[in-house]
Amino acid sequence: MAEFELIERYFSAIAVRRDDVVLGIGDDCAVLEVPRGRQLAVSTDTLVAGIHFPHMTSAQDVGYKSLAVNLSDLAAMGAHPAWATLCLTIPDEDELWLQGFSSGFSELLKAYNIQLIGGDTTHGPLSITVNVIGFIKPDTALQRNNARVGDKIYVTGTIGDAGLGLKKMLASIQHESGLRYCISRLNRPTPRLDVGKALVGISRCAIDISDGLLADLGHICTQSRCGARIYMERIPLSVELRQFYDNLPDWQDVLTSGDDYELCFTLPADAGDALNTMQQGLATPVTCIGEIVEQPGVQCLLADGRRLQTTHSGYDHFK
Amino acid sequence: MAEFELIERYFSAIAVRRDDVVLGIGDDCAVLEVPRGRQLAVSTDTLVAGIHFPHMTSAQDVGYKSLAVNLSDLAAMGAHPAWATLCLTIPDEDELWLQGFSSGFSELLKAYNIQLIGGDTTHGPLSITVNVIGFIKPDTALQRNNARVGDKIYVTGTIGDAGLGLKKMLASIQHESGLRYCISRLNRPTPRLDVGKALVGISRCAIDISDGLLADLGHICTQSRCGARIYMERIPLSVELRQFYDNLPDWQDVLTSGDDYELCFTLPADAGDALNTMQQGLATPVTCIGEIVEQPGVQCLLADGRRLQTTHSGYDHFK
Repeated sequence: MAEFELIERYFSAIAVRRDDVVLGIGDDCAVLEVPRGRQLAVSTDTLVAGIHFPHMTSAQDVGYKSLAVNLSDLAAMGAHPAWATLCLTIPDEDELWLQGFSSGFSELLKAYNIQLIGGDTTHGPLSITVNVIGFIKPDTALQRNNARVGDKIYVTGTIGDAGLGLKKMLASIQHESGLRYCISRLNRPTPRLDVGKALVGISRCAIDISDGLLADLGHICTQSRCGARIYMERIPLSVELRQFYDNLPDWQDVLTSGDDYELCFTLPADAGDALNTMQQGLATPVTCIGEIVEQPGVQCLLADGRRLQTTHSGYDHFK
Repeated sequence: MAEFELIERYFSAIAVRRDDVVLGIGDDCAVLEVPRGRQLAVSTDTLVAGIHFPHMTSAQDVGYKSLAVNLSDLAAMGAHPAWATLCLTIPDEDELWLQGFSSGFSELLKAYNIQLIGGDTTHGPLSITVNVIGFIKPDTALQRNNARVGDKIYVTGTIGDAGLGLKKMLASIQHESGLRYCISRLNRPTPRLDVGKALVGISRCAIDISDGLLADLGHICTQSRCGARIYMERIPLSVELRQFYDNLPDWQDVLTSGDDYELCFTLPADAGDALNTMQQGLATPVTCIGEIVEQPGVQCLLADGRRLQTTHSGYDHFK
């Protein structure tokens, strides 16, 4: 089959090999050994050109991002990644593009010791579906429905960079270095696997911010049957984003643009010590932005105590 | 996220629930429990409208086929299906189409007790990527590289129906009942899971016929570093196909058209008794069509001993 040849040609040289892969690419199925005492965490996402990334995105960045967004889901569960499958639909067999794509994709395979175990290559408008499988200890998953009234709400990294990057990329304003940073945040998000793993045993509830902070925190609230109050002056913003907005960010944009792939998680109010210990071992900054409350919905409070009015909660492909 | 709502709306009412699914659709990942003493078999395939099925194919048939072709890969390994993910890229949110798709897809979920554990719905030209996970006992996988010189070659069911169905569907000749049968073979292939499981312990080598008998048997030969000799008068043909060809089949078409999703497998020459026992418990017919030989390549012999000349070996999306 052409599909295997294609995948093998571009991926085999740079492949990660894991001992738990009994049979990798090249047969009808991969055969895999799961470590004793572990459950599986499985996630899958499709990226469509022109919808999930601008058509002008480089092949390297498309490859990187298509794996990163899936790893971000494992991070949000507190799981360890192990294996991935890749279904690539491409308009034509463009060798340079495939080389670039595989180099971006493989960068993350290598960084996290993930083996590509199968896939398919088909002919059609550019789209990429990745499926990732990771391991998780029983009863440790960071679930969306585990927030409790009184919990503090945290986010990793900074919020809103990717959305600003997208805006500027589409407007072809790429010459300023601050915007280059935001565009790199859009195209090469860092899956917060280190934070997800460190949260296991400390937190019970996390989500990754793919659709925008308001929408994703909203999912936590809906599934946990509670609400959230967040404070705008606490939202961590990058120097680059502050510079662009001249210190007056457009909160609507910051809160509703997706693609940051930071984690949003909750901790009981008395878990501060555990968090401090955890943070000492992590390079990723973590910021408390508010608390879980009884009243449904996400309230966004400005520095003067007024409530921010938002017109929509986030990115939604069908609305 | 709209994607979850969509998937939940159309699938939750008809859902299979398995005890080994700790966490199903609705969080960042599914969480799954693998039975002790089992390895995983994983496969994934993408179907693109206009390439893997004609645009005129009904939503039910697209749903059915997109899962069937993936289950066929598990069958070809001798694995038991357990879980599936579904990534659906659709041009618009057409309720009738989604209802049809989910009913066709669910038919197979129910038939084989498979739980849909996650997925994604995105906006774009119609394409479907399914990932299936099954269980397999260690050291029992039916691998493509296990054929040995002297082995007999078998196929399940009948060969060539789906290819004829496609030809006629594209030519809009659907009024004859024989052709309706071939079109149903194209649109609703039966994953030969019963045969795959029954072969475990008897056979070491199988593949499913997705690209055409010549191409797929060719994969066995290449990976097993051997060749094959098959006899045209032994190729099992349906009554409907024989009728269409007036008993003179176009062998090129029969051998190179894909989409039959029958199994092709090998057995040592002395395994006849085990096969007989196995066949008694199966509804699916199994036919010996030739043997594994040393000389590379697949030789196709006609009834008069002449060698059939074939111009290409099967369906290949990029050639």
